[in-house]
Amino acid sequence: MDTIKRPMVECVPNFSEGRNGEIIAQIAEPFKTTPGVRLLDCQQDEDHNRLVITAMGEAQAMRAAVTAAAARAVALIDMNTHRGQHPRMGAVDVIPFVPLAGMTMAAVVALAEETAAELAERLDLPVFLYEAAARRPERKNLAVIRQGEFEGLFQKLQQPDWQPDFGPHRPHPTAGAVAVGARPPLIAFNVNLHTDDLEIARKIAAKVRHISGGLRHCKAMGVELKNRHMVQVSMNLTDYTQTALYTAFELIRVEARRYGVSISGSEIVGLVPMAALVESAGYYLGLENFSLNQVMEARLLED
Amino acid sequence: MDTIKRPMVECVPNFSEGRNGEIIAQIAEPFKTTPGVRLLDCQQDEDHNRLVITAMGEAQAMRAAVTAAAARAVALIDMNTHRGQHPRMGAVDVIPFVPLAGMTMAAVVALAEETAAELAERLDLPVFLYEAAARRPERKNLAVIRQGEFEGLFQKLQQPDWQPDFGPHRPHPTAGAVAVGARPPLIAFNVNLHTDDLEIARKIAAKVRHISGGLRHCKAMGVELKNRHMVQVSMNLTDYTQTALYTAFELIRVEARRYGVSISGSEIVGLVPMAALVESAGYYLGLENFSLNQVMEARLLED
Repeated sequence: MDTIKRPMVECVPNFSEGRNGEIIAQIAEPFKTTPGVRLLDCQQDEDHNRLVITAMGEAQAMRAAVTAAAARAVALIDMNTHRGQHPRMGAVDVIPFVPLAGMTMAAVVALAEETAAELAERLDLPVFLYEAAARRPERKNLAVIRQGEFEGLFQKLQQPDWQPDFGPHRPHPTAGAVAVGARPPLIAFNVNLHTDDLEIARKIAAKVRHISGGLRHCKAMGVELKNRHMVQVSMNLTDYTQTALYTAFELIRVEARRYGVSISGSEIVGLVPMAALVESAGYYLGLENFSLNQVMEARLLED
Repeated sequence: MDTIKRPMVECVPNFSEGRNGEIIAQIAEPFKTTPGVRLLDCQQDEDHNRLVITAMGEAQAMRAAVTAAAARAVALIDMNTHRGQHPRMGAVDVIPFVPLAGMTMAAVVALAEETAAELAERLDLPVFLYEAAARRPERKNLAVIRQGEFEGLFQKLQQPDWQPDFGPHRPHPTAGAVAVGARPPLIAFNVNLHTDDLEIARKIAAKVRHISGGLRHCKAMGVELKNRHMVQVSMNLTDYTQTALYTAFELIRVEARRYGVSISGSEIVGLVPMAALVESAGYYLGLENFSLNQVMEARLLED
């Protein structure tokens, strides 16, 4: 049977070029031409001056594609002249790997390490491992690694605490440094409320998000939907295996009750793993002893 | 990218042999050895004297496998000596095709017709098309086609209304006739109640099933779960695209209220299409504008 080779992985590398179409096309090309890899999305932002690519495919093919794209970014981007609103420290700024069908987080961490070693070796880049791939707890958080950005790298890498996990102990002169990590799929999940009072959405967001006492793997903020005369609790669920869609949804319902406000609907932006939806269906239908293996499409993806 | 070839189909052929392991192995073999086809399940029942195979794979490969298996059944089974509890009219009794990822019902009907023509031509079998593949409304229902069983076939096929859609206008002397059809995936969905009163389960089943005024694509009966001191509404949802899991579940909840009984849980037996679970998750989470294309695994199955 023609099946997809395991293990399958998603990769969402960020590059520091969001304006020059020629360079962007060159960087994206390996994700279009590498057998075993499919380019899903290519978002360039002029204000951020940043390119975010979403691709998926077989693990080793993905390593080859992202390494080839990184080589082009290193050759074509000079961070000394780069300006943009988004924090960044390198031409290829960050490479997160995400497990898909049948792949464990441990396997993704191994892939991140392999890729990190190759980027250091082939491109002379200092590499930091982050999130699930981090080797020190203080490097789990990408924002901490990126503090000081490209301009502060030279000084940062001289500190004993900030020696990179792979590669030279100084920035690449034009390409800076790169963070390579492994993380669960992130779900962008927004819940709309039957009110136009932004303050209510903000208060509910504060109750559900981790930072202010809410759910462990939930980031949230209140947002106004002007055209619809509504407000929204806009969330990122950073680990749906621990903080489920239905949990966030029901908690918002509980908090909204305080204001006499009801939920009008919700949306998922972008991709979502099947397991996240199956889990929520299972919760509401009270499914007992259900296995993902019972889903036809999961069987189609098996070896 | 290594992807599964479209179109993909499930096939659940039934053969009239549930006792002789040698013959069963011979019939099952093409589903194991045909490239592009995977054998998922092989259930033999001695009382029914019947073999039910579940396989999935690429459409044309499936046609080849099921035709090869039918040829073996015709060669190895003599219906003149066949005894079993399950109604049957042929050595290969019924061949339902079910659309999977990305396949339309129209394409499955075309596959059923192609297979029917081949079975008539190669094996000299009279073939009736049923359910979505039926060419006359009175042949939609398999039970009606099978009335009279193998023993009544000779007489039945002499009636002008019962000339087969393909093949000779008389039964195969040892293999009878076969029904070939196209149908949506069937979901076996059971809902357990917090009571041991079987009568309550039966009354609820009567309310939710089509035949006694309930949901169009729902068959249901009350069942006792002796070990758990519970009863169950055991359902077959024969077209989840029209009668959804959550609809049946919520209707049972509504009816159970009449008896002051609550739902303890539910189960899905066997396989279920991803879309059925995604739809239920979407209902309970109030998802707006959600597309199956947003599910990562659906993207993995694309061309």
